[in-house]
Amino acid sequence: MSGPFFLGIDLGGTRIKAGICDGKARPIDHASIPTDADHGPEETMNRMAELGRRLMGARKAAACGIGVPGPLDLDRRMILRATNLKGWIKVRVPSGMKRRLGMPVIMENDANCAAFGEYQAGSPCDCLVLYTLGTGIGGGIVIHGKLWVGASGAAGELGHMTLDPRGPKCGCGQRGCIEAMASATAVARAYGLPAHEAFAALRRGDPRAKRVIDDACDKLGMAVANMIHVLHPDRIVLAGGMAAAGKPLFDRVRASVRKRVFPVCLEKIRIEPGRLGGDAGWIGAALWAREKLT
Amino acid sequence: MSGPFFLGIDLGGTRIKAGICDGKARPIDHASIPTDADHGPEETMNRMAELGRRLMGARKAAACGIGVPGPLDLDRRMILRATNLKGWIKVRVPSGMKRRLGMPVIMENDANCAAFGEYQAGSPCDCLVLYTLGTGIGGGIVIHGKLWVGASGAAGELGHMTLDPRGPKCGCGQRGCIEAMASATAVARAYGLPAHEAFAALRRGDPRAKRVIDDACDKLGMAVANMIHVLHPDRIVLAGGMAAAGKPLFDRVRASVRKRVFPVCLEKIRIEPGRLGGDAGWIGAALWAREKLT
Repeated sequence: MSGPFFLGIDLGGTRIKAGICDGKARPIDHASIPTDADHGPEETMNRMAELGRRLMGARKAAACGIGVPGPLDLDRRMILRATNLKGWIKVRVPSGMKRRLGMPVIMENDANCAAFGEYQAGSPCDCLVLYTLGTGIGGGIVIHGKLWVGASGAAGELGHMTLDPRGPKCGCGQRGCIEAMASATAVARAYGLPAHEAFAALRRGDPRAKRVIDDACDKLGMAVANMIHVLHPDRIVLAGGMAAAGKPLFDRVRASVRKRVFPVCLEKIRIEPGRLGGDAGWIGAALWAREKLT
Repeated sequence: MSGPFFLGIDLGGTRIKAGICDGKARPIDHASIPTDADHGPEETMNRMAELGRRLMGARKAAACGIGVPGPLDLDRRMILRATNLKGWIKVRVPSGMKRRLGMPVIMENDANCAAFGEYQAGSPCDCLVLYTLGTGIGGGIVIHGKLWVGASGAAGELGHMTLDPRGPKCGCGQRGCIEAMASATAVARAYGLPAHEAFAALRRGDPRAKRVIDDACDKLGMAVANMIHVLHPDRIVLAGGMAAAGKPLFDRVRASVRKRVFPVCLEKIRIEPGRLGGDAGWIGAALWAREKLT
């Protein structure tokens, strides 16, 4: 273990995760605290800084990366409005954290950070696309080793691909977004119990759970196939809470994609779980800080 | 006008277009001949070479680019199966043309060539996505000045994005691809007369033509919005025969996209006609040869 070190923080709606990596991208230490929705942005930034300082101890990090729920402004200087954090409107996180930590700070969308973390942790590829399957569906894209955020900084909004103009209403105001049909929330809504209970019931042979999960995974495969028809990445990572369901989910999604994409196109495409689990966000944020700030 | 010169050829189902550019990407001369479906690959390559030699005259080109209907193998050494050219299965076009012309030859998907041509002809951008609206719907993507063909060489198959799992059957075997709902062929099928006649009838106030065109353009906007949610390009070009309909088409597609994408995302995105018209394919092929072979 030798310097330089990098601090990564993943600001989630439920928990704040943080950790430090060394210069070779190896995680050294990490911890998490509850986000606590009652705290406003200033107090939360105080708590994130305290957590970071505690993890660093005597080791001073060279830079800090923070993953936050979007959308962000194009220059990544502020959160425009954090969906799951009440009162977080136009918050200048990087300058606020830089003042508190006394080091360069970079901010990026949380799913983008997870994509960059998984890109670094996996075998080399030209293009990685990550889906986070949780309360919503997020996405991140890495092309030639760099995060791809597109013209307006909002590329990879993979949850808002419309698959059915007559489909269920999405939080974004549209109908038939994949987020409204295949997120953990959508599965829970259709089944009447949390998504992990639906998968547990599927394992017990419950036909209603099977119907709900078959349908969600078929739709998810359709969204992945549509994305393949645009980008043809070589690595597709399904991450986030619902991806923990493992084989029953992956088998179904892969089968749905296979039905919809020219066979020749699938030879070079892997659809796989993440390797970093719930640590992808903070690790990716730390590595993105290393990439961009040093 | 000074050397080096570049020869570009666009092998279409109906016509073969070819031309030469100078080293500054300025078109110097061009011509076209009918494709004539009765000729096989060998005879057609003879005719393409003859056309190229006629255009070059005493000017020897440094390299030749050929745009062909896909799908191609990953290394661009052969056409796997040209959809609109009978009997063109596993044809090694670059080696065949190199033998005939005595110069380096590069082959690429026709819509990819058109995308590269429009990229070079327009104002600078980070990412351009081109749709060709014709018999089918093709696509091409340029990222940071290079064609993006993805892991398996088939990125930008934008016509086969599924928008409605219960939609009309597509030539690819799937249901509800945008090609089956918004290509010139789809509009002609829905209206009962060729697409340009539907647009002419729309101008005369025909309510049935309006319904057909409203619907096709709404769907096309949905496909464009889905692509934006993945890539967020800064320039989107609608090209091909049906894009010649102009304002009635562009106004409707833009309105459909505007309904479906976060407003902040649209600030940096232009949706516009091509600047090269029917010459985009051969010009793009010539410029891609310049890019890759010199």
